[in-house]
Amino acid sequence: MSDDKFARDKNKAMASLTQALDSGDVDGKIIPILKIINSLPGYYTTSSCAGRIMVLEIPSAGEKKEARTLGKWHHKIHLQKLKDCFHQARRGEIWFLVQSPIFHVGVESMEKTSPLLRIAIVNGFKNSGIKTQGKKIIIEITSTERVNTPLGMDGKVMCSDEYLKLLVQVANHAIERSDKKIDRLNTNLFQLHI
Amino acid sequence: MSDDKFARDKNKAMASLTQALDSGDVDGKIIPILKIINSLPGYYTTSSCAGRIMVLEIPSAGEKKEARTLGKWHHKIHLQKLKDCFHQARRGEIWFLVQSPIFHVGVESMEKTSPLLRIAIVNGFKNSGIKTQGKKIIIEITSTERVNTPLGMDGKVMCSDEYLKLLVQVANHAIERSDKKIDRLNTNLFQLHI
Repeated sequence: MSDDKFARDKNKAMASLTQALDSGDVDGKIIPILKIINSLPGYYTTSSCAGRIMVLEIPSAGEKKEARTLGKWHHKIHLQKLKDCFHQARRGEIWFLVQSPIFHVGVESMEKTSPLLRIAIVNGFKNSGIKTQGKKIIIEITSTERVNTPLGMDGKVMCSDEYLKLLVQVANHAIERSDKKIDRLNTNLFQLHI
Repeated sequence: MSDDKFARDKNKAMASLTQALDSGDVDGKIIPILKIINSLPGYYTTSSCAGRIMVLEIPSAGEKKEARTLGKWHHKIHLQKLKDCFHQARRGEIWFLVQSPIFHVGVESMEKTSPLLRIAIVNGFKNSGIKTQGKKIIIEITSTERVNTPLGMDGKVMCSDEYLKLLVQVANHAIERSDKKIDRLNTNLFQLHI
């Protein structure tokens, strides 16, 4: 990629990030990581997330573009929080999701992908890789903490409280591990300078 | 990578594949795709799977290496099949998984990654990317059909039959869509020759 093109892409991404930070749309947990990566020549962050617990209503699996968010949390939750959001369910499949932290990083050259990928993988983001190619080189830094399951259909949740408690416990445990990985990555990203 | 190193890696992978084919360890659905990819210079397949429904027993989330398989199917299932495998559960979390098809492909050079990734993504394997770097370049061709959820703990499944029916329905639907994507990829892989 030409230096010019990369510089333009980075400028554009930085403008979006500034806007997102100003509106409070970026989870505080990942801001230090975004700042470190963006301070380095040859790298910039695009869409990133600290990891989250979500409840979605979707017409059918695979049609997530048409999903409606019933609940979304970037922290641990109580069972009641989860149950409260079910009241909004109307039509389609109700899904429960736990997603691990994810960082998308634009990289100037293939040579610069290896050091960042190595640091990500060593610090627990084992599912990281190069996601798209073509004109832009994008690294996806992510992990394997994941729950992804239907809970019910057309407004009705088919799970007992006992089962929902298990889901909340597993989800909260995943958030705890995600937070630790974010801390580790934050601590060790300095190695990219070397 | 040197041509010699790549040729050695491909030979080794082909020997493993021949052994797996002889033992019947490769799902028939994906054999044509493996044959096409391996017939092309610059590419070879490593671990690959047609997509599957699984029940695992694991000490705790994230410790999947220590998992014990209670059930595994590469085709659609009936509720009773699922319930039958629960009897083997003893200790730890019981997880239900639906995994999309996955192909790992060793590639000779970065230049050769783009054509294969493009064909994979266009034919429904939207989660594909370059997974590892370093000495080997590995493309992971995969999709987003996925269920990943705990069902219970220490031998006890906490889900009603009504809920398990929903899971089986969603899992079978994912297998159907996976099969269609495998067919599409198989039909369109010839474009790699061009």
